[in-house]
Formats: sequence, C-alpha cells, structure tokens
Amino acid sequence: MPAGAPPVLVVTRLDDVTADTVISELNRRAVPVARLDPGNFPGTITMTAAFDTFGLSGILRTATRNVDLARVRSVYWRRPSPYAAPEGIDGQAGRWCAEEARYGLGGIVGALPGARYVNHPWRNRDAEYKPAQLATAERCGLTVPPTVITNEPDQARRFADRYGPVIYKPLRETDYLDDIGRALTVWIDDVGPDQIDDGMAHTAHLFQKRVNKTADIRMTVVGDHLFPVRIDGSPGVDWRRHYDALTYTLIDVPPDVANGVRAYLDAFGLTFGAFDFGLDSAGRWWFYECNPNGQWAWFPEPITTQITAAIADQLTNPPGAAT
Amino acid sequence: MPAGAPPVLVVTRLDDVTADTVISELNRRAVPVARLDPGNFPGTITMTAAFDTFGLSGILRTATRNVDLARVRSVYWRRPSPYAAPEGIDGQAGRWCAEEARYGLGGIVGALPGARYVNHPWRNRDAEYKPAQLATAERCGLTVPPTVITNEPDQARRFADRYGPVIYKPLRETDYLDDIGRALTVWIDDVGPDQIDDGMAHTAHLFQKRVNKTADIRMTVVGDHLFPVRIDGSPGVDWRRHYDALTYTLIDVPPDVANGVRAYLDAFGLTFGAFDFGLDSAGRWWFYECNPNGQWAWFPEPITTQITAAIADQLTNPPGAAT
Repeated sequence: MPAGAPPVLVVTRLDDVTADTVISELNRRAVPVARLDPGNFPGTITMTAAFDTFGLSGILRTATRNVDLARVRSVYWRRPSPYAAPEGIDGQAGRWCAEEARYGLGGIVGALPGARYVNHPWRNRDAEYKPAQLATAERCGLTVPPTVITNEPDQARRFADRYGPVIYKPLRETDYLDDIGRALTVWIDDVGPDQIDDGMAHTAHLFQKRVNKTADIRMTVVGDHLFPVRIDGSPGVDWRRHYDALTYTLIDVPPDVANGVRAYLDAFGLTFGAFDFGLDSAGRWWFYECNPNGQWAWFPEPITTQITAAIADQLTNPPGAAT
Repeated sequence: MPAGAPPVLVVTRLDDVTADTVISELNRRAVPVARLDPGNFPGTITMTAAFDTFGLSGILRTATRNVDLARVRSVYWRRPSPYAAPEGIDGQAGRWCAEEARYGLGGIVGALPGARYVNHPWRNRDAEYKPAQLATAERCGLTVPPTVITNEPDQARRFADRYGPVIYKPLRETDYLDDIGRALTVWIDDVGPDQIDDGMAHTAHLFQKRVNKTADIRMTVVGDHLFPVRIDGSPGVDWRRHYDALTYTLIDVPPDVANGVRAYLDAFGLTFGAFDFGLDSAGRWWFYECNPNGQWAWFPEPITTQITAAIADQLTNPPGAAT
C-alpha cells in the first residue's frame, strides 16, 4: 500500500456490517482501505511510529496491509474491540501491557497528522455523556423535554408527580448478563411513582417527561448532510423494540432544528451524529439524544445508500480526489 | 451556601495537599469553596440536576455543603478517587451502578453551564496520550527529541543504534505492585541495545534520544502566566528520583517556547499544564512532555505561592470579583 492514493483507515472489529458497507463503497471508488482492530494488538499487528524533523511517520502492519501512517487521509472510527492483555500474559503484567497499548497505539491512531476523523474517538467519548448532550442541545437551540438526573427518590417522585407520564433511561449502555449469560438491554420505558423506590439511592438515574409523540425521528447527520427519517408504527416508547412494525419516510427539517444539530456537532467536534427526536402533534421536534457512533446501515434503501455515500465523501475529502 | 458569592467546586480525593493549598488561598479571598470526591458517590453524596426551560440547575449535597449547580463559577479538577460500586452491591450490579454514576454525576459535573474548568477532565484525558503530546508539541513549534513508539525489537534496536544513548519511558503510569503490595514506579532510564529483547513485542514502548542536557526545566503554565523553573543537581535522567539533590531557579523563557506552550494548551483546550524540558548547552529547550494535571505544590517559595495565586485567579475569574 505505500504507493498510490492515500489510504482510509477503518478502525473496527471483525464483525461490523456498517463498516463493510462503507468499505464496499470506498472499494468501488478505488480508494485504498486498511482495516484495523486495535484489540488484535499485538497479535497480528505491529507498529513503529517515529517523531522526527518532519513530524509523525511510520508503519502499521496488520495481517493483510502495511499502512504508511503519514499518508493516512482519514480514519473511520467504528467499533473496535477493547485493548486486551497479550496472549499468555495475565494479572497485572497483562493489564500493564494493555494500558501501554491503549496509550501507545491508541495515541498514535488518535494523532495522525492531517487525517480527518469520522469521528475522532476522543470526541465520541465526550459526546456519550447524556448530561453533556442535554446541556449542549439546549445551548444550541434544540428543545429538550424536562429531564432530571438524580439519586434522590423524593426528587424523582416529585418530578414524576409534576411531569408524568415519565420514562426512565439508562445513562450508559453497560454490558449486563442474565443468569444464563445472555446480554440484557435496559430499555427506555414508562415509570410510575410506585416504581421509584429507595434502591434508587444507589446510583444516578435519568427520568424524562414522556413526549406525547405522533412519531419518532432518527436524523443521521454527516457533515452538512441531514438524513431525517420519520419512524411510524412503534406501539411503545422505545422503537428499537419493534423493528418489524416500523415504516420509514424521509421528511423535511425545520430550519432551526437543522441549525441546532449543526451547532451541536460543532460544539462536540463531531462530523457524524445519529440524533433521536420525538415529533409532537404541534410539529415540535423534541431532542432525546445523539449517539455519536450510532448505527444506520439498517435503514431501507435509498437511505442507506445515501448515508454511505456521504460518509465516503467525508473520508475521501475532497470528494472524488482519489477516483 | 445558596446565597452569597458563587462557589468554586474542587474535585479531588481527601488527601491532596495541592488542592488544600488552593483552597486556603480561596478561603483567604473569601471565595466560597465546595469539595467533592465523586468516588464517595452515592455514600455521603446526593445529587439532583434538572434540565428545564433555563438549562441545567440543581443541588449537589456533600457531607458538609449544598452546592447550587447553576451557580458554580469554576471547577478545580484535581485527583478524585475512582467511581466505585455502592457499599453492599457487588458483581455486575455494582459495576453497573458505578458506570451509571460515572456517566450521570460525571456528566453533570462536566457540563456545568458557565463554569470555567481548570482543567476540564475530558481535556486532561486527551492530553495524557504521549503520542498526541509529541505531535501537538511539534505542530506548535516546540522542539521534540527524536522519539520512536514501537513493539518491534528490530526497529527499537535500529533507533538505539542511530540515536543512542536512548531512554525508555512508559506511555502511561499504570498502578503496578511488587510481591508485597508496594506500588512500583517505572522510571525513565537509559536503555542499551542489549536490553531490547523480544519481550518488547508484547506491547507498545517509547524510546527517545537522551538529550545531552545541562539542566532540567519544569515550566508550570496557568493561563498566560509561565513559571519556568530550572532544576539543577539531578545526577541521572529522571530528576524525580533525586529530590534531595535539586536546586530550583526561576529563569526567562525564549519567546518561541512561550508561544509554543500557549499554542499547545490552546490546542488541547487546557488552562493549566506542567511542561518538562531538557536544556542543552546551546540553550535549546527540548520538549519532553506536558502533564495536564501535574503536581506543583512541592516547589520552594516563592514559586508555590505565585502558582497558587495564578490558579486562584483563574478560578475566581474575573480575578477579585468575589472579594
């Protein structure tokens, strides 16, 4: 890969349909692609990066590619597997190796000169904090439903009395397994005042006034391109539980919402965001959250193809330069 | 604390002499201070934050203070203890509680409207990656010694042959205990080619040309104030091993270095940085690293008092408004 057009580095795990979709499009455009899963380091990966008179240079070797670090034009950051101890090294030596890898390889991949990031992983990390999402959305002129984050049962009950019906939403998607090892999802759901008990004091909880919605909206944003999809047919609060019942329609965006989401992405330094809104009967868009690394390849055509092209444009910036 | 001047929130663990020094100065200036260790949440801490028509508001209750979140004027982020499972809840339920706390309380404390952060914890986190430090320092016009980050023994030997003597430096200070539970420090030290073996392949390592230094420099920077201290008397590479032998002198800063460190802090969004340089016999300043949360209260007078005042000025911004 040293010669030819500068490559796009795709950082993700083996099993990632969304990355595959973008890689196919980059292949179609004849843009060189290298795929990296930092969780395979050291394993099948070696890396040498030098800081010299002309800044960072070096080579990252994966099982199938040699990547000239100084020439990487962009990084598509998807869902890499976690840094792990090298095979055969456990205990604190293993943890030490994994941390050195995170700060060494992770630092290099996060500091490539001249590379454009979609998105930079450290910007994603900031943008995953829901309280920061809500504060930023309000500052950018988006409309946020009344929300409380608390570990005080009395305050949660007071909020539910005032704003009910309210929903509960986890602050973070943490892995949680049931008794037989299956991954559990904590869904967004209605909460009654009787469900708020003193166990709540053990950690922070988010409650939000349930929007009296006529439909849900998932708006995927890539740079200046907005893909606002109206989602109809969800019988409950969390449409992710009802994929089979849903229909999707591309709709128009009110100008203040379009300005708001662009300001929001700028505030966090993001190029990509998957915004969730509730649409009420007055036509108001209520901001729920923005996943800086949300999935989108499950949309029906032509939406997926359009988003794929917009991401590929960002990664080949300026569009078409390498074709 | 609801009435009166807006408070400064100091985020740190119980045992933090550096924070104590700043709190004493704020007390002297009659600026209200609240101290928070998120590692004590929930324990002695309760929190309710609401997002409403006027943005974020709410109350954080510690063992000794009620803090009006909307009125916090600044946050001094020092060394909090880690988020932990609540007492009596272990396993994955405990981990789940700790993660909800990190993203809930941590998100709130990171998103206070109008608060100035010294430094914002998410900016510190970015700035702790040494490869990003080196890349940013070079981009800002600072002079970086030739450096390599690698897990390839051959490349490390080649670097040592070319640039020796070279030093080894850990990429991250990870807790590491010896056989009887004492914390070990991995020191920065000389490395010969014979010490580079195949064990190196297990993770990333940083090697750097050893600067032929006449003295070390620790420059603490607080906003526009630079505190460049020349450190003489270290018999070895890492002056932290020889505190008893050291002498300290405030010196002048070359203008390009002053511009470089200000650009560096701007690039990372930092207000505070503890920069380490090596000074060679030609008067060149070689950038080693910048600790975004470095210690400084160990300097002799009058340096410590001056840094304390500069930090207190940042936290009461504009200086003197609350006195």
